[in-house]
Amino acid sequence: MITIICGTNRKNSQSEIVAGIYKKMAEEAGETCDFINLQDLPEDFIATALYENAGSNEQFNVIRQKMVEAEKFVIIVPEYNGSFPGILKTFFDGLIFPATFSGKKCALVGISSGVQGAVLAMSHLTDILNYCGTNVLANKPKLSAIEKNIADGQITNPLYAQLLKSQLEAFISF
Amino acid sequence: MITIICGTNRKNSQSEIVAGIYKKMAEEAGETCDFINLQDLPEDFIATALYENAGSNEQFNVIRQKMVEAEKFVIIVPEYNGSFPGILKTFFDGLIFPATFSGKKCALVGISSGVQGAVLAMSHLTDILNYCGTNVLANKPKLSAIEKNIADGQITNPLYAQLLKSQLEAFISF
Amino acid sequence: MITIICGTNRKNSQSEIVAGIYKKMAEEAGETCDFINLQDLPEDFIATALYENAGSNEQFNVIRQKMVEAEKFVIIVPEYNGSFPGILKTFFDGLIFPATFSGKKCALVGISSGVQGAVLAMSHLTDILNYCGTNVLANKPKLSAIEKNIADGQITNPLYAQLLKSQLEAFISF
Amino acid sequence: MITIICGTNRKNSQSEIVAGIYKKMAEEAGETCDFINLQDLPEDFIATALYENAGSNEQFNVIRQKMVEAEKFVIIVPEYNGSFPGILKTFFDGLIFPATFSGKKCALVGISSGVQGAVLAMSHLTDILNYCGTNVLANKPKLSAIEKNIADGQITNPLYAQLLKSQLEAFISF
Repeated sequence: MITIICGTNRKNSQSEIVAGIYKKMAEEAGETCDFINLQDLPEDFIATALYENAGSNEQFNVIRQKMVEAEKFVIIVPEYNGSFPGILKTFFDGLIFPATFSGKKCALVGISSGVQGAVLAMSHLTDILNYCGTNVLANKPKLSAIEKNIADGQITNPLYAQLLKSQLEAFISF
Repeated sequence: MITIICGTNRKNSQSEIVAGIYKKMAEEAGETCDFINLQDLPEDFIATALYENAGSNEQFNVIRQKMVEAEKFVIIVPEYNGSFPGILKTFFDGLIFPATFSGKKCALVGISSGVQGAVLAMSHLTDILNYCGTNVLANKPKLSAIEKNIADGQITNPLYAQLLKSQLEAFISF
Repeated sequence: MITIICGTNRKNSQSEIVAGIYKKMAEEAGETCDFINLQDLPEDFIATALYENAGSNEQFNVIRQKMVEAEKFVIIVPEYNGSFPGILKTFFDGLIFPATFSGKKCALVGISSGVQGAVLAMSHLTDILNYCGTNVLANKPKLSAIEKNIADGQITNPLYAQLLKSQLEAFISF
Repeated sequence: MITIICGTNRKNSQSEIVAGIYKKMAEEAGETCDFINLQDLPEDFIATALYENAGSNEQFNVIRQKMVEAEKFVIIVPEYNGSFPGILKTFFDGLIFPATFSGKKCALVGISSGVQGAVLAMSHLTDILNYCGTNVLANKPKLSAIEKNIADGQITNPLYAQLLKSQLEAFISF
């Protein structure tokens, strides 16, 4: 059972497409998958689901519970301003600790419009996940210039497809 | 002119207290100060002020414009789950690039309930700020166990007071 | 089989003591252990065992081969000037790639005289090890003020002893 | 006065070429330059110039003193195994603290054979330099695929030449 997380709430994002491709690939490999899309965060998330309000937003509590029950996460991480989208960490900040992360496993996929492939974003997330008790798979594909390597919901760059496939195989046995 | 940013939207935060102390200290040193509190972000910020909606939330545009006009930032950075609060990076993601950060200067103050003093949070933020073109002051106080070192709106630990004072002096001449 | 690495070549280091304690603890848990001490690097290591000289220093080749054959590493990482000792990365730079690190597993123990417990050192090392294909255990004890918590070759702080024990158990099943 | 450091002791390195180009560029801009090449480290550096031997290697003491007297450093940082060369940090570990780094200024140039341009190496170094009290310029060129963009001691990629020029200008006024 793998829970795939689209790491941004931006609409019609490349991350959402890559998350869909990853889910299909994992299902074809025999895995049961769940999917969490940060687009589904309540519009007033920052005012109703964090800190003293943690647990009191019923719409968010559904996602929150799914995160506790998940065992293995794959996070699709787009690069925004040199790191991960702020909304991804804000989402983390609204979850249940330590139950969501402690003893869990996570794989990261970095994507970017530019050349970096979200390498710093994934470094920062690895620090955060490790701090929270989640083991992170070493294999972290860096898919740069993503717009040029994806079309019609498919990865068009065979190397990128291979990188994702290799990661998935490593993650299944992680 | 120094713009002091409280790096969380949590109500009644220690960060807000430290930001107030910093502002007073800077004003006593002869600096004009502005203050930005992430508590003032619109409740529907994540749905109305990011990505394709950038610039269309009038309430947020006031803050956005202040960030463009600022020259030097001091960010009070509490440690949440091993890094900075997600809301701080989400706030960044709604700002104007490159005008907000390019060629600007920033100082970071880390605070934590635990023992780390937000050291990883400040490392991650330095990566982000440098990526966005902002020079970051090397001097980054790490104020751990903050609840035990602050009372009645005052820093009670003389070492912490000295660390902030030394940083401010370095930042004024940065 | 666990290979324990003392991450500095400093003589009579606290790291060496902690490495010895860890080895004993792992053996008592039923593990076979190997031990690599960076004190055993040849004195002219930087001139005879790196880059175009890789593989030509017979004294170092013995260690080099042990690193290839190892499956799981525990590295005791002291904090020197804000990160790991340079000699530890220099040692890495003389090893065989990708055979030494690819598909391996590693646990990190941070120690420091000061308050940080080598947290940045371990973050940097995690980046490096992940890049080289080694999965790093999330559980990374940070043993600060080490001189005050060790005596006569024993950990005197029960919390520190517990942190190491918990890590070892997690690493055995990693 | 700018001190340019070739961040590796590998012979005939691309870093040395880039360091030479940088020195010439800085001199043409009217700066006095010094040059430190890690190739000049004594062969037994790790056994005679670190820790309890600090200050006792006369050959190294010449370099050590130059580092204390320097005001602004430019470090050419090649990417080795996911970060900076270990020898660069080992070199740091043999210097005089805090006099070498405290209150100084540094600019970093990342180079790599692969696609990353030493981005993680420069992130790690920024942590270290900031820890040691050195302000690091935000502008950090990432020169990837360096072998394809340099020939006969010249940068052949006009973008790379422009990136270095822009950095130098920013560093002179830093």
